Amino acid sequence: MATATLLLPICGVALFLSMLVNPCYSQQFAISFQRPADCDVEHFYDISSLSCVKCGPNQRRSATGFSCDCVTGYRVLATNGASITCQQCPPEKPAVTEDGYGCIRCPGILTEQGTCQCPPGNILAFKGPSVCLCSFVSLRCERCQTSFINTSQSCVCGSNILVRQSSMLNMHVRRKSSEKKRLRVCVRVVQVYTNLTACQALGNMCVMNMHSFSSVANDACGLYNTIFRATAALGSTQDISYWRANLPWLYYGDQPGLANRVLQTDPLPTGFSFKGLNRNADVNLVAAVYSARGDFLQWETVGGNNLQLCPDSPSRQKAAYVFGTAYQETVSVCLCLKTFGFYRGCRVVYLTHVYRRLLPLPTCNLNQQYNGKFINRGNKNDWYLSRRVLLVDTLSGREKSLSSLPKVMRIASSIRIGFQLVPGTQKGQVFPPLLTVSYSDILITDPNTQSVSVSFAVYYEMDQTEARVKTDIALGVLGGVSVLYSLVKTASWKRRIGSPLIGMETVLKFLLFYAGDLANVFFVITMGTGLYWLIFYKAQHFVSVLLPLPGQQEERFITYVGCAFALKTVQFLHKLILQLSVDIFFIDWERPRGNANKLVQGNGEAKRDHSPVSIWRTYFVANEWNEIQTVRKISPTFQVMAVLFLLEVVGFSSLALRDPWSDLQRSPQSYSPPYSLILRYGLAATLWVCMGLLQMVFFTVFHERFVEDKIRQFVDLCSISNISVLLLSHRCFGYYIHGRSVHGHADTNMEEMNTNLKREAESLCGQRGLLPNTDTQTFQVSITSRLRQQYDRILEPLSRRNGPSRLVDAASGHPFDQSTRAYNTMNRFLGSVIDHAHRDMEYIVRDKLFFERVIGMEFMEPMDKSIFYNDDSHSFSDILFYGNEATLLIFDTLFFCVVDLGAQSFVLAAILTYAQQLLFRLIRDTVGRRNLANKTLVDKRFLI
Amino acid sequence: MATATLLLPICGVALFLSMLVNPCYSQQFAISFQRPADCDVEHFYDISSLSCVKCGPNQRRSATGFSCDCVTGYRVLATNGASITCQQCPPEKPAVTEDGYGCIRCPGILTEQGTCQCPPGNILAFKGPSVCLCSFVSLRCERCQTSFINTSQSCVCGSNILVRQSSMLNMHVRRKSSEKKRLRVCVRVVQVYTNLTACQALGNMCVMNMHSFSSVANDACGLYNTIFRATAALGSTQDISYWRANLPWLYYGDQPGLANRVLQTDPLPTGFSFKGLNRNADVNLVAAVYSARGDFLQWETVGGNNLQLCPDSPSRQKAAYVFGTAYQETVSVCLCLKTFGFYRGCRVVYLTHVYRRLLPLPTCNLNQQYNGKFINRGNKNDWYLSRRVLLVDTLSGREKSLSSLPKVMRIASSIRIGFQLVPGTQKGQVFPPLLTVSYSDILITDPNTQSVSVSFAVYYEMDQTEARVKTDIALGVLGGVSVLYSLVKTASWKRRIGSPLIGMETVLKFLLFYAGDLANVFFVITMGTGLYWLIFYKAQHFVSVLLPLPGQQEERFITYVGCAFALKTVQFLHKLILQLSVDIFFIDWERPRGNANKLVQGNGEAKRDHSPVSIWRTYFVANEWNEIQTVRKISPTFQVMAVLFLLEVVGFSSLALRDPWSDLQRSPQSYSPPYSLILRYGLAATLWVCMGLLQMVFFTVFHERFVEDKIRQFVDLCSISNISVLLLSHRCFGYYIHGRSVHGHADTNMEEMNTNLKREAESLCGQRGLLPNTDTQTFQVSITSRLRQQYDRILEPLSRRNGPSRLVDAASGHPFDQSTRAYNTMNRFLGSVIDHAHRDMEYIVRDKLFFERVIGMEFMEPMDKSIFYNDDSHSFSDILFYGNEATLLIFDTLFFCVVDLGAQSFVLAAILTYAQQLLFRLIRDTVGRRNLANKTLVDKRFLI
Repeated sequence: MATATLLLPICGVALFLSMLVNPCYSQQFAISFQRPADCDVEHFYDISSLSCVKCGPNQRRSATGFSCDCVTGYRVLATNGASITCQQCPPEKPAVTEDGYGCIRCPGILTEQGTCQCPPGNILAFKGPSVCLCSFVSLRCERCQTSFINTSQSCVCGSNILVRQSSMLNMHVRRKSSEKKRLRVCVRVVQVYTNLTACQALGNMCVMNMHSFSSVANDACGLYNTIFRATAALGSTQDISYWRANLPWLYYGDQPGLANRVLQTDPLPTGFSFKGLNRNADVNLVAAVYSARGDFLQWETVGGNNLQLCPDSPSRQKAAYVFGTAYQETVSVCLCLKTFGFYRGCRVVYLTHVYRRLLPLPTCNLNQQYNGKFINRGNKNDWYLSRRVLLVDTLSGREKSLSSLPKVMRIASSIRIGFQLVPGTQKGQVFPPLLTVSYSDILITDPNTQSVSVSFAVYYEMDQTEARVKTDIALGVLGGVSVLYSLVKTASWKRRIGSPLIGMETVLKFLLFYAGDLANVFFVITMGTGLYWLIFYKAQHFVSVLLPLPGQQEERFITYVGCAFALKTVQFLHKLILQLSVDIFFIDWERPRGNANKLVQGNGEAKRDHSPVSIWRTYFVANEWNEIQTVRKISPTFQVMAVLFLLEVVGFSSLALRDPWSDLQRSPQSYSPPYSLILRYGLAATLWVCMGLLQMVFFTVFHERFVEDKIRQFVDLCSISNISVLLLSHRCFGYYIHGRSVHGHADTNMEEMNTNLKREAESLCGQRGLLPNTDTQTFQVSITSRLRQQYDRILEPLSRRNGPSRLVDAASGHPFDQSTRAYNTMNRFLGSVIDHAHRDMEYIVRDKLFFERVIGMEFMEPMDKSIFYNDDSHSFSDILFYGNEATLLIFDTLFFCVVDLGAQSFVLAAILTYAQQLLFRLIRDTVGRRNLANKTLVDKRFLI
Repeated sequence: MATATLLLPICGVALFLSMLVNPCYSQQFAISFQRPADCDVEHFYDISSLSCVKCGPNQRRSATGFSCDCVTGYRVLATNGASITCQQCPPEKPAVTEDGYGCIRCPGILTEQGTCQCPPGNILAFKGPSVCLCSFVSLRCERCQTSFINTSQSCVCGSNILVRQSSMLNMHVRRKSSEKKRLRVCVRVVQVYTNLTACQALGNMCVMNMHSFSSVANDACGLYNTIFRATAALGSTQDISYWRANLPWLYYGDQPGLANRVLQTDPLPTGFSFKGLNRNADVNLVAAVYSARGDFLQWETVGGNNLQLCPDSPSRQKAAYVFGTAYQETVSVCLCLKTFGFYRGCRVVYLTHVYRRLLPLPTCNLNQQYNGKFINRGNKNDWYLSRRVLLVDTLSGREKSLSSLPKVMRIASSIRIGFQLVPGTQKGQVFPPLLTVSYSDILITDPNTQSVSVSFAVYYEMDQTEARVKTDIALGVLGGVSVLYSLVKTASWKRRIGSPLIGMETVLKFLLFYAGDLANVFFVITMGTGLYWLIFYKAQHFVSVLLPLPGQQEERFITYVGCAFALKTVQFLHKLILQLSVDIFFIDWERPRGNANKLVQGNGEAKRDHSPVSIWRTYFVANEWNEIQTVRKISPTFQVMAVLFLLEVVGFSSLALRDPWSDLQRSPQSYSPPYSLILRYGLAATLWVCMGLLQMVFFTVFHERFVEDKIRQFVDLCSISNISVLLLSHRCFGYYIHGRSVHGHADTNMEEMNTNLKREAESLCGQRGLLPNTDTQTFQVSITSRLRQQYDRILEPLSRRNGPSRLVDAASGHPFDQSTRAYNTMNRFLGSVIDHAHRDMEYIVRDKLFFERVIGMEFMEPMDKSIFYNDDSHSFSDILFYGNEATLLIFDTLFFCVVDLGAQSFVLAAILTYAQQLLFRLIRDTVGRRNLANKTLVDKRFLI
């Protein structure tokens, strides 16, 4: 334990020192970038090691730059293909033959190059092992390769012999033919002479054969490995153990787990950054291109169409090489051989970085087989990484001769470059990117009409474990808290329904409350995650986070959103059903006018006829209540439109693209990366919630204060019309709006109404509150069971009316009479209760405790007295849409986002959200009206 | 006259006969399509005339196929470059030399080809004018062109001498240098030997020089013309007068107006059709490709990227060659010379059609100059059409040597192919398409980073004169009719305001009415036009119409839409203002209850206190009226959403693309042509109007019948609440809703209300109509001026109250008192008028005449009696939004379309239309409520 504590700082210092010594870290595979033009005259460009190598003594760089020649006056003494030895010509034979191998005396004059120039009319002739060969470039006689002479007994005049061999090789490798004469030629060249070009050609053959080899078959890659082992003495080049001198570097090695080490050990020395002065977002790739016959052609800057087979405009193709921009193109291209002209040959791809260093891109060839098994399709630990890719192979598929059309074409149908971020980096460091390639063989039937689907992708990933763990922790903690909160809610509900029993119903209620709370937890977590990615991904200067990849990494998130939506729907429907079955009664305080009443008191018959209390005030109040049922704190349609406007017209949707830029308007010409589902969700949810909050602020601060406040208007109306409202949302809990007119009467003509209003405006009359000299008109009420029983008893005949039809006895009377009688009874009963006229149904008025407000539960049980809690915040709106804005807003948000995640279309999401709002408003309105008519006994025809 | 009638059928027959004889019409320029492979062994392919030409006697096709060789045993006797003469070798010298010009005796054996084969170790040697030349393809010795020997005195071993000359030529043509030695070489070749390849090379030089020539300078085109004139004796080829044998065809001729004749005389024999069995929508273009040095390379099918320099995916590029699809791509491409490798050489483009005939595409080179003037940029009559285009010229810009990099590059920066439909065709016939090309010279600084903007377009046009004339006629006729209609409206308005004077106000009113009617005319015409194009363009089998081109041809249409929108806005605002200032009064029929009234009659003091008539019914009715002010026959938000859904989600917007297909969903991969503004308008307007009509049908047939009819509810409410409504939209015209309760009293309690409703449902009481035993409750009223004066007099104190504040004398009393007094007076006064209690303000009830209904004007003037017209159609809704659905719908449609035309975004249009609806609804609501409060004296606080 103590040792460890001691060792730690020491190691830290050591690490620090090693960084000082080698500021670029120890990059195992990086090489320096040298091009043929970088070699001076004493160096030739070694196409195997891709570096300048010094020529031997008495040698200088040849014209091509890829080998050395003897200096003037020196002849080639010996060659092993890769290098030559030079010997000075004796003075008597000062000239060198054209093939460079002999010294001769000149019949004519000696040229500057040390060869003979014949007088006009004469031609040079000499004997020896030289045979006249013709080539494309000149008429110069060349020395015939001994190997050719040995095998074919004639030095065939042909330049592409090696290519032909490689083609044939592949054909017969595929056909498992035994005829291997030509292959052997090549192998001899390689083994005996270590010819650099021939080595590359063999490497290319192995690439054309998909890097596959087995322990038994003796194909190109097998031979490569044989030579590799045989030439161990030559040592490695560029300090890379599997890069044998003179041979191409094809494999990273075969140790188990090497792939993981190669891909995740050494980060690049410089990091990527998106913004700022040190902006470094360009992925600079270069490729060393070899022709199929093994010639080094050139270094190509990868950018246009030298890795991408998909044709597209240059500006769009360039987008693939901007760090952080997810690139994905799949196009069906014509097989026309002409189109593929550019793509012949093999490419070795490197990533360049500062100080002109090259980092090889490890290649994962999905078609690579070992002993007939695809080894690169399984666990990363078992991968065999390789080097060198080919884009189009039209050679291997040619039968008989190189001039015939290929029967089969092999094409790199999918190329993907993947960058992985170093975990925890703040400087945008990445591991060496991985090039994944997969090939397809296409049987050519009609190359001009046939087409093939090719894809090119660049993706960026980071280890998402940490994010996942954090999400899980948040989910666990918040989920636990919400269990507690739901338990409190259930307890409160138990108290409010005045039932102490715990049964199935209680459990169900708990689950319903829990659904709502859990939905909120999921919503907060998903929205937080979305917002996190949106902000951190789009705003980062140095790259420190990369988006989760589509598919598995996003799946978990989508599941959370789905859970949030499903649970929120449950909560919303639960609340909707509760609202649609609430109990409500309008208590009319108006009494028949005193005078008229007295005058007809003796006459029992006429009593009903005289100056009845007009029902129109009740109609008016009921009508208004009907109208405010679906009023919301925000305008839902405006919400839909505003969010749609921001997303689609202002262009916020561009922020959800998988690239690090935050421009809102993109040119239609430029490349448009795919959308990130997480960003889409984060963006849409944030905009929706923000716009909702903005609207709420606007409506609360401005509109309700200066234009119209529907809820306050209703309370005022109650007061003016002399009508109180009793709302019972639970069996023993509800709300009471005290509406007794301060003028005693409201059922009067315009003159008196105007006078009353004016008097009240001038504060010439009493205050509206339930208690004297108070203003509080709205209360939460906890009523006693006794009161509730009485309430139910009065309504019993009516509920029977709505029950199943049966043989109603005549005594029960006409339904109209029944309802009117019930109405009158209830009106009188409730009026007397409020007026403290019932001794056994007393009530007290008190303020709610702060803690009671917070957890939404009453601590006192209404045992023998009902309790009226002062409630200035109009919490009766909890049984309207108005008081449940949070639930509705989150439900709408989730609905919008879920539709968008499914259809990837904000327009459709907006339209469906509107339709959803319309539907539920319609349900709330229609069923709410029916409930209102049933409970208040006001005819439905007046609820318009 | 008689002769003409007689001649007509004869001509008709003659025409018919000529068509029988020549079923393909007489196509002046069409040639038959022959490829090198089509020629048999006795024909060679003449690269000038692009046809198979028979070889001379004793000759057979050469290996290349572009010339003739002597048959075995014959030697070339003479040659003029284009053709040779053969002579049999004498028997003693049976073999032909390798160059074909001499007969020799063989030292060895005679080969099948009639040449000598030496035994191994020997080589052939012969004297004569043959000089050993080396070429790319073989080591064969060739005869040196005499012209080269003559000028350079040595037969230089080089294959691209002509190209080099052409390059130099252009350089010095540009530099106006005098050194023309090399050009002369070429010209001598052409003049003396008529070498086919050299002629093509000269033609290409002329193309590289932009086809430009002048009467003084002696440049490539000038020389071409000189040779053209000099070789008149050779005659023309392919029956085309300006296509001289052995020469390339470069010009169409120089007669004035020739361009018009070439482009608009002979239609193609087969027409294009979009659908059906004979679907023929492919534009098959082929190009004969010549290398810069004059070699015929191949026939290319134009389709991929051989005319389009813009890189794109093949499927998208192919879309350019589908007839009817407007194609337009402008892309900035890299100048990398590699990219342009394919595009070297000159192309001669032909359109193929059935029977393998080729129709040359006349080319209009915008850079062509004649005497230093750009002749093809002005009037079509002065154009010089030409043949042959080049895409990229990297040769002319090379200085000194061909291997140097070009300093300047000439590129075909804009290529457009235009098809013109034959006027009045029903079979999709088009004139020969025109290829318009314009070149840019680009100074090359850094080819790897430099880029250049190139564009490729295919457009389709037809003569739009007829459509324009028809539109103008329709506009004239409908405009005239609408003047009449507006006059009638003005007359009706004059009658309704009861004023016979014609002043400025009358003229203004006329203009306002006329604005509305003219807006409808413009709307009908534009929508008809849009629909016409939509249907006829998208649904045609054989092509008979093509869309107007963007720009000038669409401009007129856009102007019409603008007019329609502007005028509709005027009409809408006019109607809105009228609605906001309408006069309205609620007549309360309720009288204090009889009993109570009698009992207190003696007591004057107590009269007001006893059982006053409750004002709450009036409040209720006023509140409802306030609510139905902005009710519409359709749901405007649903309208917006539904149209947006159809356009953007279902994909109707694809119908507005400039192509003939009617698929709704397009793949994002496929080419998306630009939108046609006319189609966009036609589509949007049609969908909007159709969706509006559908909604109206739904609301009228289903919703108002089975769910809720707000207007009928209001009339019912009037009746139940015992309140009539008098609405005066004009001074002496308005509407009356008779609401006297059939029960005498409505100001009663719930019990009685329910009883009343039940009695009425069971038809136990009288009918609601104004006249006994009628049901008609709604009337249009024409009131006498006297009645109106009385009405105004009662309201006078109130209007004074709203006027400018002044020193009100105390006698006028409190405003409250005033308004209550005015209310009571008005109530009594109007009640007595309806009750026929005023002798001098009598009224009669009658039906409106059919014609009165149609033109919306009353024929009878209310002189001494007011007239009540029965009106079962609730026409009082004309002063609500409800009754003006047509105006609102068209206004919304135009608003939506105008925004879309401006911004090309249906989403933005939908959002702004919603905002517009919201705004105007808010204005109508707020101002309407204030007007209602002012006119009915109901406190604004009750209008909630």
